[in-house]
Formats: sequence, structure tokens, C-alpha cells
Amino acid sequence: MGALGPVSVSTAERQRLDVELGERSYPIYIGRNLLSDPACYRPYIVGERVMIVSNETVAPLYLDALRAGLEGFEIDQVILPDGERYKDLTTLNHIFDALLERRCGRDVTIVALGGGVVGDMAGFAAACYQRGVPFIQVPTTLLAQVDSSVGGKTGVNHPAGKNMIGAFHQPRAVIADTATLETLSERELSAGLAEVIKYGLISDRLFFDWLEEKVPALRALDPVALATAIDRSCQNKALIVAADERESGQRALLNLGHSFGHAIEAGTGYGTWLHGEAVGVGLVMAAQLSERLGWLKPVDTARIQDLVACAGLPIVPPDSLPSERWLELMAVDKKVQRGRLRLVLLQGIGAALLTADVDAGQLRATIAAAQRQTA
Amino acid sequence: MGALGPVSVSTAERQRLDVELGERSYPIYIGRNLLSDPACYRPYIVGERVMIVSNETVAPLYLDALRAGLEGFEIDQVILPDGERYKDLTTLNHIFDALLERRCGRDVTIVALGGGVVGDMAGFAAACYQRGVPFIQVPTTLLAQVDSSVGGKTGVNHPAGKNMIGAFHQPRAVIADTATLETLSERELSAGLAEVIKYGLISDRLFFDWLEEKVPALRALDPVALATAIDRSCQNKALIVAADERESGQRALLNLGHSFGHAIEAGTGYGTWLHGEAVGVGLVMAAQLSERLGWLKPVDTARIQDLVACAGLPIVPPDSLPSERWLELMAVDKKVQRGRLRLVLLQGIGAALLTADVDAGQLRATIAAAQRQTA
Repeated sequence: MGALGPVSVSTAERQRLDVELGERSYPIYIGRNLLSDPACYRPYIVGERVMIVSNETVAPLYLDALRAGLEGFEIDQVILPDGERYKDLTTLNHIFDALLERRCGRDVTIVALGGGVVGDMAGFAAACYQRGVPFIQVPTTLLAQVDSSVGGKTGVNHPAGKNMIGAFHQPRAVIADTATLETLSERELSAGLAEVIKYGLISDRLFFDWLEEKVPALRALDPVALATAIDRSCQNKALIVAADERESGQRALLNLGHSFGHAIEAGTGYGTWLHGEAVGVGLVMAAQLSERLGWLKPVDTARIQDLVACAGLPIVPPDSLPSERWLELMAVDKKVQRGRLRLVLLQGIGAALLTADVDAGQLRATIAAAQRQTA
Repeated sequence: MGALGPVSVSTAERQRLDVELGERSYPIYIGRNLLSDPACYRPYIVGERVMIVSNETVAPLYLDALRAGLEGFEIDQVILPDGERYKDLTTLNHIFDALLERRCGRDVTIVALGGGVVGDMAGFAAACYQRGVPFIQVPTTLLAQVDSSVGGKTGVNHPAGKNMIGAFHQPRAVIADTATLETLSERELSAGLAEVIKYGLISDRLFFDWLEEKVPALRALDPVALATAIDRSCQNKALIVAADERESGQRALLNLGHSFGHAIEAGTGYGTWLHGEAVGVGLVMAAQLSERLGWLKPVDTARIQDLVACAGLPIVPPDSLPSERWLELMAVDKKVQRGRLRLVLLQGIGAALLTADVDAGQLRATIAAAQRQTA
């Protein structure tokens, strides 16, 4: 995996970034007002039929604009309830019901309009409907634009664990319209920034430096800063995914902060914390554990904590989770291999690594110390 | 796709046939009493944990023997209700429940012990659990041994259509123990013969000739004849699957008789007719339509009808399905592309082809004529 050079500011109206995955390669378009631009869709739809999957919050805002971009196709739509708690097999089945009710064949293209939950479910439905149909991602949250829509991970939750049921299924194209971010709440925008910061921490120190300066501009929805951050995040993710499509090795680095984050989400009940909020705390806790192991300098832990806070994210975990429950929730996570807990930790800013050498005692101590901050 | 030579009789205790799919290649072992043979499993299980998926009919007969073959691994099991009507998302979720309750990680290997329904569901669970874990097929019906366990198609039914939700996921190995066929009912054995006959019809005239002589021996469970028929069927299917893993073209030939068959199964309610019984009639109806189009000689239609009957299978459809319902059910089938009905028909015995040129009138006439035979 090559490292990226200095952060270059994006000023083009529509940028294109290609995710290189051989015959499954696809473009990501980034820019303002792409939603209604037929040129973003036409080359990637093979048949004549399109099934839009959206939710009851996003549809009233952007469905008409998307339909304008898809003019000329036979368009159907299915509108799901909004929220992580609906990301399950039952809601997934609503998509299958709609596809079958409308008698869609294998030549239908599914278009996901919404955040990560919609994208994950629509993508998984596309992976499974008649054993696989094409789909296009139109992410409308910052989190989805920088993360969920790149990499081909799709799926739903199970009461016993997040994203436990799913498939790898690459989209034909991703259209990230930055104008859709203007209707996000501040809380959701901050949640997206957690994943943006994550890319800097994993392997892109220059980006981390840039973010320390630009997070206020991003929170103020500065369009050039937003397009730059999305582009750079997607570049980082695309490099990692291209090197390891099925997550056999390096791709696991993308889980930085996520083992802690998943435990927070599951332990407090999905939907109480936003995914990005849980990841924000997860990044801080991963840094704290790395420092405890002597891998990370205290000054870097402080920088990480400051940037996460500056992004408007929580930096301490909920005090309601007993330490044993933490370990239990982290052990069911997919990062377990042959009974050993694997974690992504930091050897520096921009230098993450996957390790199976974490002592449970030090993990417990990190959790306890973080919870003391709460009190 | 190369044609196969004369049928060679199999007398080895354990035959091995390799399905060539690049890095997803896998062996099929065929023989008597393989169920308890650790050598059939050990090379294909990477981790230490195994989850056996079976059903309440098969488990009492063969679970102990299989567990003996898997000695040394940490074994869990989930026993599903028996029957095509349970092949749905709800039953699938029981498998996920078991995997999560036992805290299985990505290194678990799922072993499917049973007929096609168990294999399809266990395989689909393996495709989706944590986005994909390995699995091994141990088919215990003739139908599953010659068909469902080869090719990587997995999935569940939806009330609106059979196998509408699924994935392509190749097993690591298939173990076809012919001794398990001794507990099959005559009806189920005949159902399996429908798929065996299908391979002769698609592209293996020599096999069809052999079957005309050997069907009585197969129905009498002659072990040499059985192993030969399974081996030859799997060879045929493996050639077709290797040439077209994702069913973009040639693989569709394997659907010979299935568009009609699916309509019968769906129209009468899944489980009323066995899949193989519906396919048996479907083969006859495909021959009748081919003859009506002038593609197949009447003498060949007669041979096909005789062989299907000789296998103990029905040769006329249920009279309860109105002709419009037939067309409706066939139109929702996966063989529809851009609104046109695609069918696999015959230009001779051993010469199937996929066509989109079928006139709805001739299809209606074929259905009407077949139903008159019922009366």
C-alpha cells in the first residue's frame, strides 16, 4: 500500500476517484449537486429498471432530485423506516418484497439513497436478490460518503452482534453529493468526522495534520474542505481495500477504534450512540491502550483526543457498561480469531497495526481509566 | 465445454472428482461409508470449530456417524425442521442464532448434513455469516448428491418465488456417501433421478442411453450403478459450472425442465410436489414444447417420457393450475430477462439450448395439451 503525498485541495466541480478492484473496479464521483446529474448514473445501469432504496427521512429531501437524474429508466422505490435498529433481516425482507412485487428480474439495478444503514441494507439486498444484481451507492451522510459506500461491505445486524450477517458486494458507482450534507444535523456531521480522522490515524499523518487545521471549516460545511476531506478519505480507503478486498489482512486496519466502538453501540443498544460517536471514543481508547503498552507517545494521545473533541465528538465512554460486559462484547466481535482478541492499535499518528498480543489486564485497565474520566 | 466419452463404471471404494474453479476449486468424494472417514474432512477444515447444520429427519440417522468423522474438532450443531416450507429467512436465522450463541468466529467451518434444503440454507448461512465462512457439503439424498451440492448456488425461498434470495458460495469439499441413499423413500430416490436424467438430456447422449438400461438398477440401489450415475452427473455439472460459475450464459442450461417445474412447485404450494418430481414433468414438458416448435423428433419425446416414467416420476402436470397462473408463475422466474421469457429447450437428446424465441401461444398450447393428458 503506497502512502499518499501532501493533501491537495479539490476545487473541480466533479471529481472522480477510481477504486481499483480488477473487473469489479468502480468510480466515486464527489461534488456539489451531482444527485440529478444523469451522467453519474447512465454508464453504470445495464438494464432498464431501477429500484431506489431509501428511508423515510432522506426520501422527502432527495428522492425527487435522484429521480430526475434517473429519468428515462423505469423507476420503482422502497422506503424503509429510518434508524440502525431497523437494520435487520425483517427490514431487508421489505426490499425483497418490493423487488418481487414489481417482478424485477436480474437486470434491475438497485440504487441506495441514504446513509450507511440504507447503503448496507440495499447493498446486501443487491448481493442476495436472485444471487446478485448490480447496485449504485448514493450516500447522503458524511459517514457513508467517506466510509460505508467504499469497500463493498454490506449487511445487517443480529441482536447478538453488529453486521454479523452480510456479504462483500461492490457497487458499480458511488455518487457523493456534498450538497446533501447541508441537511445533516451537527451531531451526524461530527459522527462522519470520526471516520475521517481514522484515516489520518491509520496511515496518513499529513492528512491528520491537515485535519487539525481544517476541522472547524468542515463543521462549517466549507464545500472545498468537504470535497477535499471526502476525496482524501476515499483515497485512503480505496488503497487499503484494493490491497485486501476480502479482509484477510491489512483491511482489518480499517477497524481502528471499532472494537471499542462496537462494544459501546451494542452495550447501550444500537441507535443510542451514533456509530461515528462510538468510533470517536474508540479512537481515543485505542490511543490510550497503545500508550499504556508503550507504543504511543502521550503527546500523540493528547493530539488525538483534542482532534476528536474538536470534531464535536464524545471522548469518554458511557459509564453504564461494566468492565466484564465490555470484554464480553468485544469478544463476540469479528476481530476474534481462534479465541484470541485481535485489536488495531497505534504505533504513532499514521501508523496503525493489527495485533493479537494485547493482555486482557491492560485492556481492562484502559477501560477502567476511561470510565473514571466519565465520573 | 468438452463432451464426455463413454460411461465408465466406477468400482473404486472412494472416487474423487475435482470441480475446477481456480482458487475456489474443490473435490467431490463419492463412495460407500465415507460419512465417518476423517480423511474426507480434515484437509478442508482450517480452524478448530465446526457447526453441523442438519434437520430433524436426517440427524437421528447420520449425525453420530458424521461426528465420528469429525472427531478432534470442537463440534456444535443446529437441527432445523425438515421440509422445503422451512427454507426461508426465518429458519436461516436459526443458524445465525446458533453460530452467535456459540460465539463462533470467522474460523468456524459449517458442515451441511442433509438434502438440498439443508445444503442450500447452510451454504447461504456460510456465505453470509460474518460475510463468509467456509463450508462442507455432506448431501444425503440423491438429488443433493447429483445437483444441489455442486455449483455453489445457495439460498432460501421467498413466498413470491423459489430461491429468490441467495448467494454463490462454493463448498470446500463435497462428501457423497452412497450408503445414505438406503434410507431414502422410493419417492425421494425417483426425485433425484430427474436431475440425473437432466444431465443426459442437456449434453450427454451416451449417459442418457446408459440410463435407459440402468434406471432399474439405480432404483434397486445397486451401489456400482449409483456411484457411476452420481460421478457422471457431477462430471457433467462440474464442466458446465467451471465454464460459467456465475450463470451468465451456458450455466442456464442446467435449468432444463426447471421453469415448468418451479411453476408446479409454486402453484401447488412448496412441498406438495418434490422438486425432482416437478422437474421430471418439466423435462417432459420441455420436450413437448421443443417438439411443437419442430426442434425435437416425436420419437425422442417418447424416449424422454418413457425414461422419466421408468424412473418412477410423474409425467403429467397437476390439473389444478389454470393456464394463466402457469404463465404468471413462469414469468416471475429468474429466467426472465428484460421482460422476455427465456427457456431451455431441446434440439435433440444431449443437445439443450437457451432460447428467448418462444411464442407465448405455443407455450400455452403445450400446457393445455399436457393438462389434457391428466384428464
